[in-house]
Amino acid sequence: MMITLTTDFGLQDPYVAQMKGVILSLNPTVTIVDVTHQIPPQSVMQASFALGISFFYFPTGTVHVAVVDPGVGTQRRGIIISALGHLFVGPDNGIFSFVLERAKGNYRAVHISHIPPIPHPQSSTFHGRDVFAPVSAILAMGTEITEFGPEIGDVNLTPLGKPVREGNTIRGNVIYIDRFGNAITNISQEDIPGPFTVQYAVRKKKKIKLAPFYQGAEGGLACLFNSAGFLELFSPMGHAAEMFGIKYGDLVRVILSPRTDLSMPCA
Amino acid sequence: MMITLTTDFGLQDPYVAQMKGVILSLNPTVTIVDVTHQIPPQSVMQASFALGISFFYFPTGTVHVAVVDPGVGTQRRGIIISALGHLFVGPDNGIFSFVLERAKGNYRAVHISHIPPIPHPQSSTFHGRDVFAPVSAILAMGTEITEFGPEIGDVNLTPLGKPVREGNTIRGNVIYIDRFGNAITNISQEDIPGPFTVQYAVRKKKKIKLAPFYQGAEGGLACLFNSAGFLELFSPMGHAAEMFGIKYGDLVRVILSPRTDLSMPCA
Amino acid sequence: MMITLTTDFGLQDPYVAQMKGVILSLNPTVTIVDVTHQIPPQSVMQASFALGISFFYFPTGTVHVAVVDPGVGTQRRGIIISALGHLFVGPDNGIFSFVLERAKGNYRAVHISHIPPIPHPQSSTFHGRDVFAPVSAILAMGTEITEFGPEIGDVNLTPLGKPVREGNTIRGNVIYIDRFGNAITNISQEDIPGPFTVQYAVRKKKKIKLAPFYQGAEGGLACLFNSAGFLELFSPMGHAAEMFGIKYGDLVRVILSPRTDLSMPCA
Repeated sequence: MMITLTTDFGLQDPYVAQMKGVILSLNPTVTIVDVTHQIPPQSVMQASFALGISFFYFPTGTVHVAVVDPGVGTQRRGIIISALGHLFVGPDNGIFSFVLERAKGNYRAVHISHIPPIPHPQSSTFHGRDVFAPVSAILAMGTEITEFGPEIGDVNLTPLGKPVREGNTIRGNVIYIDRFGNAITNISQEDIPGPFTVQYAVRKKKKIKLAPFYQGAEGGLACLFNSAGFLELFSPMGHAAEMFGIKYGDLVRVILSPRTDLSMPCA
Repeated sequence: MMITLTTDFGLQDPYVAQMKGVILSLNPTVTIVDVTHQIPPQSVMQASFALGISFFYFPTGTVHVAVVDPGVGTQRRGIIISALGHLFVGPDNGIFSFVLERAKGNYRAVHISHIPPIPHPQSSTFHGRDVFAPVSAILAMGTEITEFGPEIGDVNLTPLGKPVREGNTIRGNVIYIDRFGNAITNISQEDIPGPFTVQYAVRKKKKIKLAPFYQGAEGGLACLFNSAGFLELFSPMGHAAEMFGIKYGDLVRVILSPRTDLSMPCA
Repeated sequence: MMITLTTDFGLQDPYVAQMKGVILSLNPTVTIVDVTHQIPPQSVMQASFALGISFFYFPTGTVHVAVVDPGVGTQRRGIIISALGHLFVGPDNGIFSFVLERAKGNYRAVHISHIPPIPHPQSSTFHGRDVFAPVSAILAMGTEITEFGPEIGDVNLTPLGKPVREGNTIRGNVIYIDRFGNAITNISQEDIPGPFTVQYAVRKKKKIKLAPFYQGAEGGLACLFNSAGFLELFSPMGHAAEMFGIKYGDLVRVILSPRTDLSMPCA
């Protein structure tokens, strides 16, 4: 069986290793894969997105642990979700919103109430190691999710900043910027009913219309639908975010054009 | 069996991978876990601390390799330590001081004199790959430590900067700053006999008394005993080290207060 | 069996994890080792070097995937190479030049034409995940390379910037700078027929002659042949690249000296 980890713990400190030690102490043969530990601290939505576009590449039955947890130490719940053939373990703070969006309401969830005992000092501020790691280790042995607590129906979802349509304009936002400077928006292929152009206001001043095709000009800004189905701004051979000052949260407009001869669809 | 790695080699260069290749060539089924490779270059004490608060989360019998090795190429010894049910492999430069502190003198050690042959070019400056990796691979098969050299009694310990008590004041230092800006001191719960307050001199000028409870105010500085039992300065929801200019080595005072009604104990 | 990964994808984004998910879905028991994912974006030669000095530490039969792929989406081929008992999978853009240099012409190669089916959305811009990952997963099961496409004879080699000899001077370049500030050149031990000195022009102005022995003076610049056999500039206990402003591509001269009594050979 397999466990993936998505956190904001970074790779400098030994915290991720402590989680792995706990998991392997309980389940020595499980394979652990890091999704990423470099989510910006406490950015629940970016963790949700990173996991939401990645979990389905793993075998069904994989247990995905996600810990970006600003509310640790408060009364927020720990949860397990079963959806789309995968299992998800983490805080109930919306971190599984992108997964549940994809599951379209078909999921079961439990509130973690029974934590497997671990023979180590425990901390009220490190549930990644002391709660979610041991739960995932036992889950990956095939244990039923209901062994860990009562079923619940009201999992917390963060507003994903769904794009808004007004007339022939769809307004969305940049929700993730990757290492290459690609800026991924929350506007998906399904949100766009027909031919369109894309507008992005560079540094919130000059609006630019995006070059439409994949093989855009070097130094320019272009767009495509990425493999996860989201509209993505990029610059051929360049780092779009740096070149155009694109930031997390920036507004992106899709203009639905009735005149197909003028439309500049993304590749 | 399991091997952990703690180094200052970073993740950019292929050096860690070369160590893993050597280990897996000799012992193809061993599980390798990274504790961290981002110890600041040549910071032996920070490596010692990272490993010292993490090794016991792994199964007993795990082999822990630690390589921060400013003295490579000189006459410093390579050693194996057996303590607390775990095995430790690395240079004899104090890197296992925190482990041995925890072992309270109960350990055995050998001076590595017999190195398993590896079929590759070797280097006088990369003992991590050419000495400690092959030794750990063979150790993890269950080989006795005495197969690798003679037992020794005088393992090198770095002064851990143990806190000093003068009258009703205990003076300690910041010994580790983590990704979240938490500043961990060398003052442990056991060093403090009774009620107390904590003083930290911000930028070596303004002394501040720390807010005592876990749920401190946002923007303020607070303290707690972390899960490893050390006094830790933090700022609720913030990056304490950046906000208050806390640096590695900074002085932290614990004032033992006889008047318990005034005491502001850490949570 | 074992698969290694060398990419410029970084560790912040979930792209490497997606590759691992695809590999483990097809071949759940394979061991995956990261060589590095922090190759500077699109630096094919640095990836080639990192892999070229590392692959032979892994067991024979290991499959090495390397993806630094500025040409993805164009007509560049995907290839598999079998050389020196190892297998290599990636784009045909010269990324295996250092490996093939070492193989001295003894290799077989195929053009990847048959891609194992994966049950996921695919992208024209992420061959690491959608082509090279599934090919490596199936290869690591022992499949013949010719199952993936026709044999080819004309693998792309990047000019490695081989050093040039003029009279008694050999001119080479810095081709890799590691985390410790060591500057590795493309001048190998075999290129130098006899006693020599080394010249490096600091910030392209002041030429300095290098101190010859390993235990050079702190604060100075020294040189050695590293464990891969290449001439390397370093500063004892310091970060040579920062201290002397050494950059990727910088010129390094080896002066062949007929007077052995004046020669300052590297250690």
